[in-house]
Amino acid sequence: MSEGERLNRCGNGSRGRGARPRGTSDVLKRSRLKVRFCTNESQKSRADLVGLLQRLGFDVSESEVTAPAPAACLILKQRGLRPHLLVHDGVRSEFDQIDTSNPNCVVIADAGEDFSYQNMNKAFQVLMELENPVLFSLGKGRYYKETSGLMLDVGPYMKALEYACGIEAEVVGKPSPEFFKSALQEMGVEAHEAIMIGDDIVGDVGGAQRYGMRALQVRTGKFRPSDEHHPEVKADGYVDNLAEAVDLLLQHANK
Amino acid sequence: MSEGERLNRCGNGSRGRGARPRGTSDVLKRSRLKVRFCTNESQKSRADLVGLLQRLGFDVSESEVTAPAPAACLILKQRGLRPHLLVHDGVRSEFDQIDTSNPNCVVIADAGEDFSYQNMNKAFQVLMELENPVLFSLGKGRYYKETSGLMLDVGPYMKALEYACGIEAEVVGKPSPEFFKSALQEMGVEAHEAIMIGDDIVGDVGGAQRYGMRALQVRTGKFRPSDEHHPEVKADGYVDNLAEAVDLLLQHANK
Repeated sequence: MSEGERLNRCGNGSRGRGARPRGTSDVLKRSRLKVRFCTNESQKSRADLVGLLQRLGFDVSESEVTAPAPAACLILKQRGLRPHLLVHDGVRSEFDQIDTSNPNCVVIADAGEDFSYQNMNKAFQVLMELENPVLFSLGKGRYYKETSGLMLDVGPYMKALEYACGIEAEVVGKPSPEFFKSALQEMGVEAHEAIMIGDDIVGDVGGAQRYGMRALQVRTGKFRPSDEHHPEVKADGYVDNLAEAVDLLLQHANK
Repeated sequence: MSEGERLNRCGNGSRGRGARPRGTSDVLKRSRLKVRFCTNESQKSRADLVGLLQRLGFDVSESEVTAPAPAACLILKQRGLRPHLLVHDGVRSEFDQIDTSNPNCVVIADAGEDFSYQNMNKAFQVLMELENPVLFSLGKGRYYKETSGLMLDVGPYMKALEYACGIEAEVVGKPSPEFFKSALQEMGVEAHEAIMIGDDIVGDVGGAQRYGMRALQVRTGKFRPSDEHHPEVKADGYVDNLAEAVDLLLQHANK
């Protein structure tokens, strides 16, 4: 999955025309409409993610991004929790201000190659030593698409630890309602006024709909044809790519 | 978990006295009673396992052991399936007679350190390329105990692949009823005549009870005090170790 596909979008309609595959988010941002980027990216810090997107030509700033790691840090501080981190090195800096000594919970994120048996076992052992094991999972995506093929996301590893310990994880990120709520609050927009655009039928489309938003699925990235007959989630619309989604929003806004 | 603890026992009562922690299985085997060793061991071939047990002084032969890998091979042959194997090198020889070219299913076992991200991702990709993904899991244990601490078993990784692919695995091994059935058939004993002794409240005790057997849990190995208040499974009895279980069986048989 390209970074552009991985970073999904919350918008509330648009005006103007001429959206193209490149620059679509710029078109939205130049409109009267509010746009926010909701990502479950948990391998990079927001700073690194935004830097990469800017180099790719995207007009995005760190303050426009809702991401799981900062949201998790807020929860950890509020609840006085000290995490054992099973996360990718690229996102570790987001936790710099968090006390990780003598851990009383575990935070897992899309750790990629760091999901070794040894690291999984360590996280498991930390949880089993706690009287009340608390596990946070930054998202619960099943997989994502790289140029080399489909790749396991954090969700399967969350399920593994849930089963091993007999517990249920707290998900921070899409499709958690709390995550959509915080994104909308940051925009100052109500759920029924907002449209989610994403490639994940469950994480993006289902999650947004459960919070009262409408949602379009793009037929790019992790999209699979069977998503259009998903047993539990039906998107409000399907579009071939982000440009088509923006065109639709603009047509709608101009009616 | 020691090998002695990991290899659980099916028996149908006993006579004689004087069972001790060492030699308990010999006492059972010298009685009029039939004894079978039911293991979910899937890191070693039966030959290696029995060799190790014999060196430790156990009087066990390969033909007395019911184990998941040979059971899986039978199923693969019957159904014309060619597996992609995600298994420990130690058990790979059990699959020597199985065609693994152009795989149309996946078999996972307790692969230990081989549960790397790369290997899990490969198994996931094989499954996702199949029209009807078939996943076999040799057991579904949550964890086991080594001298270094609790270790993740195959079950969590089975759950990970189930979630990633949206499928349900076929379990070969305890607590699958088919597995207990084949062990009892090999003994020529009915379920109501047999007693299972094991350290796993779900895999040993719950599985045997669901097949109509009685079951004792030993307070060794992976036993945890909370097992005695398990929400779903209640053992027919708890014993401090195998020797106490054998004593109980002998007392019962002599009444």
